[in-house]
Amino acid sequence: MTSPSTANSERARLVHLAMQAIARTGENTTRALLAKEARMPRARIDAIFATDDDLFDAILEQWYAPAIAIMEEVIDCDLPIRRKFYEFFARRFVRERERFRKDPAAFAVYCEIGTDKFENVRGYVDLADHYLSELIAQAQEEGHFSGLGINQALSLINQIVACYILPQMLLMVDQEKLSEGKLATIIDTLFDGLSGDARGAAPVAGLRIA
Amino acid sequence: MTSPSTANSERARLVHLAMQAIARTGENTTRALLAKEARMPRARIDAIFATDDDLFDAILEQWYAPAIAIMEEVIDCDLPIRRKFYEFFARRFVRERERFRKDPAAFAVYCEIGTDKFENVRGYVDLADHYLSELIAQAQEEGHFSGLGINQALSLINQIVACYILPQMLLMVDQEKLSEGKLATIIDTLFDGLSGDARGAAPVAGLRIA
Repeated sequence: MTSPSTANSERARLVHLAMQAIARTGENTTRALLAKEARMPRARIDAIFATDDDLFDAILEQWYAPAIAIMEEVIDCDLPIRRKFYEFFARRFVRERERFRKDPAAFAVYCEIGTDKFENVRGYVDLADHYLSELIAQAQEEGHFSGLGINQALSLINQIVACYILPQMLLMVDQEKLSEGKLATIIDTLFDGLSGDARGAAPVAGLRIA
Repeated sequence: MTSPSTANSERARLVHLAMQAIARTGENTTRALLAKEARMPRARIDAIFATDDDLFDAILEQWYAPAIAIMEEVIDCDLPIRRKFYEFFARRFVRERERFRKDPAAFAVYCEIGTDKFENVRGYVDLADHYLSELIAQAQEEGHFSGLGINQALSLINQIVACYILPQMLLMVDQEKLSEGKLATIIDTLFDGLSGDARGAAPVAGLRIA
């Protein structure tokens, strides 16, 4: 029998091989392809990944592990809330940009696969929303984002920082235009400007009718 | 000889046909394809569009005409500056969303072609930036966005409202999540929160060193 730690390291090695194959071929991989890649009997692969989807989930787990570690670290740290918000987004942005710069083509492939298989990715998006909601609750306790429910604030903040959280933005927006300095200005803008009060931007048709 | 107005209406009819072909085939079109589509001799098409790129530019002109009309209308209107900003983005967003909803597949094709042929599109992006810069200058005269150069404010604002100006966002973001109400909140957030002063989001490493 294989010991648990050996099984884990074999699984990790296969996930690593699968990710290399994705980067090289520009396509999502399967257990059949992975068996060839690893020069292992298909039955052995199937014992570790019961379906192709399980293999893909294992790859996703590996892909998102650093972002989850960053979010947990920021949630638990004792920085002031405004600094926490910045670190929550900036550290993940810097990490994604690093991955993007290392291999832009492979990064583009992951974006494409992630879009195609969004049902598998959704849990990670929900997890990020969960952590951000914790930070929003903390900010609201300190008087920020007044007049907004947590889910409203969550949606607005995700939209306002979209350039720094959607990986596709690294492909779509001129690299030079995204920077940690601008992200900091955007976070300060949020903290000083985001609230649920209508302050003149929206049309006043409702008032006219009244 | 063809009179100028007949020539113009023929040109417009051909551009219209070319756009229908793009929506139907899911690919950019060429003068060769357009000749078949219009059942016209190729020489006649070539007299109107000297190159395939000229045909594409004529399609782009048609595609962007409503957005340009909206921007010019908003620049010239006498709404308060905060309302102008909202209308500048909201009217174009509503118009794009309408186009997207009418034919999501064709909209996706246009996004893809626009990305592939960004050199042709760049002039329209620059024009939108030019108009937004005018609005920013006006806002700054009234004391908003202090401490930021026009180009800095332009880049930050484009990033903060990215969900409402990048057509790809209609494909990427859940439709229900983008709304005129949220856009109004984002504009109010900008007007009350955007400035060049560092207000605590950025790390203070520099201060520690000092």
